[in-house]
Amino acid sequence: MEPLKQYKDLIESGLQKLEIPASPAELYEPIRYMLSLGGKRLRPSLVLMGCDLFGGDINLALPAALGIEVFHNFTLLHDDIMDKAPLRRSHPTVHAKWNSGVAILSGDAMFVKSCQLMMQTEEKHFRAVMDLFLQTALEVCEGQQLDMNYEQAENVSIEEYLRMIRLKTAVLLGCALETGAIIAGATAKEANTIREVGNNLGIAFQLHDDLLDVYGHAEKFGKQPGGDLLSNKKTFLLLTALADADASERKELNHWLSEKNPDPKSKIEAMQQIFSQLNIREKTDQKTNSFFRKAMDLLDHVTIPLPKKESLQQLADALMVREH
Amino acid sequence: MEPLKQYKDLIESGLQKLEIPASPAELYEPIRYMLSLGGKRLRPSLVLMGCDLFGGDINLALPAALGIEVFHNFTLLHDDIMDKAPLRRSHPTVHAKWNSGVAILSGDAMFVKSCQLMMQTEEKHFRAVMDLFLQTALEVCEGQQLDMNYEQAENVSIEEYLRMIRLKTAVLLGCALETGAIIAGATAKEANTIREVGNNLGIAFQLHDDLLDVYGHAEKFGKQPGGDLLSNKKTFLLLTALADADASERKELNHWLSEKNPDPKSKIEAMQQIFSQLNIREKTDQKTNSFFRKAMDLLDHVTIPLPKKESLQQLADALMVREH
Repeated sequence: MEPLKQYKDLIESGLQKLEIPASPAELYEPIRYMLSLGGKRLRPSLVLMGCDLFGGDINLALPAALGIEVFHNFTLLHDDIMDKAPLRRSHPTVHAKWNSGVAILSGDAMFVKSCQLMMQTEEKHFRAVMDLFLQTALEVCEGQQLDMNYEQAENVSIEEYLRMIRLKTAVLLGCALETGAIIAGATAKEANTIREVGNNLGIAFQLHDDLLDVYGHAEKFGKQPGGDLLSNKKTFLLLTALADADASERKELNHWLSEKNPDPKSKIEAMQQIFSQLNIREKTDQKTNSFFRKAMDLLDHVTIPLPKKESLQQLADALMVREH
Repeated sequence: MEPLKQYKDLIESGLQKLEIPASPAELYEPIRYMLSLGGKRLRPSLVLMGCDLFGGDINLALPAALGIEVFHNFTLLHDDIMDKAPLRRSHPTVHAKWNSGVAILSGDAMFVKSCQLMMQTEEKHFRAVMDLFLQTALEVCEGQQLDMNYEQAENVSIEEYLRMIRLKTAVLLGCALETGAIIAGATAKEANTIREVGNNLGIAFQLHDDLLDVYGHAEKFGKQPGGDLLSNKKTFLLLTALADADASERKELNHWLSEKNPDPKSKIEAMQQIFSQLNIREKTDQKTNSFFRKAMDLLDHVTIPLPKKESLQQLADALMVREH
């Protein structure tokens, strides 16, 4: 069986078997609900892959893999309250289906649960695993705070944006790979390198996601594209367009950014037109590829058997699949 | 120096020295703010006392003591959002001073920080300390959920209420004492017993707090009494009154409970009058004392030097001080 398929099956069956009490229902039902909404299970797959790469037994990495998936879903749950998002993976968000009190508290319980799963790591590794996990959790909070700050900020530099997505998204991918590596008994140097592979892949992954939001097909992307444009989200694409625009393009961009009730279709098309004049798609692809190549270069410096390296490359390629 | 004073000084100075980053300010400033609002520092004092009781070095218990105080403040921060509370210790709550997004996220970061502090416990004890801490954290979430459920519930039994305050308030006091005991190297049996002492003291403490809300003096209690009466909070006092009332008293109670815009002073006085007819103050004191005595009886079964036992008794007495 393909390693990736094997990982996903292990993870889904592990999630099924998680012991989540029945009562109080308002606390635990939202946790089951969040975990049932599916998804690629990318982060736990990276934990198992990090373990596999260094010749470890992936069964020993499974609790930590599940812990990182539960943690990721906790961050989605709380982010959805802060972003007032009505939908998550085409289903009502927890705060919409229940209420925001339930969503805050079941998120808190989910975070506790994720720590308990991380703690199931065997004795000799679990302090290293927990230390990395908690440090990463704090960075993810910082990233979400910066993301909220940037919504209100007048000016956000591309550097600042990249730092924000590194914290909000990428470090958890790096943490996932390193966690697996630690459990497999990798050296500190190897574990650090593989984390950097994950961090760089994570940034590439987020930049690619930003691109798909503008150019993706609804059926493949899983949501209607253009959402970031309509909400004036300061993504790499918009920030690059604002940086590279000439006076007349900037004026038109600012017109659409300040328009109170624009016709959605007109706004999306007009902004895509300016992006096209400014080669934003190509510039985003270039930037994405630079992080992707950095990840692959770092991977070259790790001594692991070629077939194992190829399954990480395969996963990375799958993340970067061109859907536009 | 009095042990209690010594504990408090150690805790305040430990909180002062906590490393909390400066940026992003919206994430970390609310954490500093919450921790600066003061309070009795009861829970961390119980950690140090638990350690002291069993002859441990309280400096080794200090990180866990701070972890439990940070955790407690995290629960207050999130509870205040759920309860839409404008004030905490006479200061604006975090969600009122900033906004609910900031309050959710800085609470999350505070929880991470509390885990990091617990993790500073020395190698041989920290798995036991973390396991207890996480189990307790989940129980505190359950207690808060039950508290929210009971606000909406038609009927809540006294048994259910006692179970709720056990989870929401008491188990963290028990956890605090047991954490200290574990760090001092107490046996599992001793650690369990001292946790039960804390759990019973915690219930007594909450029942006494309910009483003070009805009969306390504003200046000593730190807030205007009568708040629970005005908000129809189903405390031990109200539930006992409803259980013991005759037909005419129940009718009057229900009148005040269903009155949409009552005059606050009239409602408080009328309910106090019915409570007085039903000897609610005495019944609450009796119930409080039964948990208090249970705690003291359990303490008698633990072999610790008398002077140390006396400082726990002294702390317990201070909690139960009659302010009405």
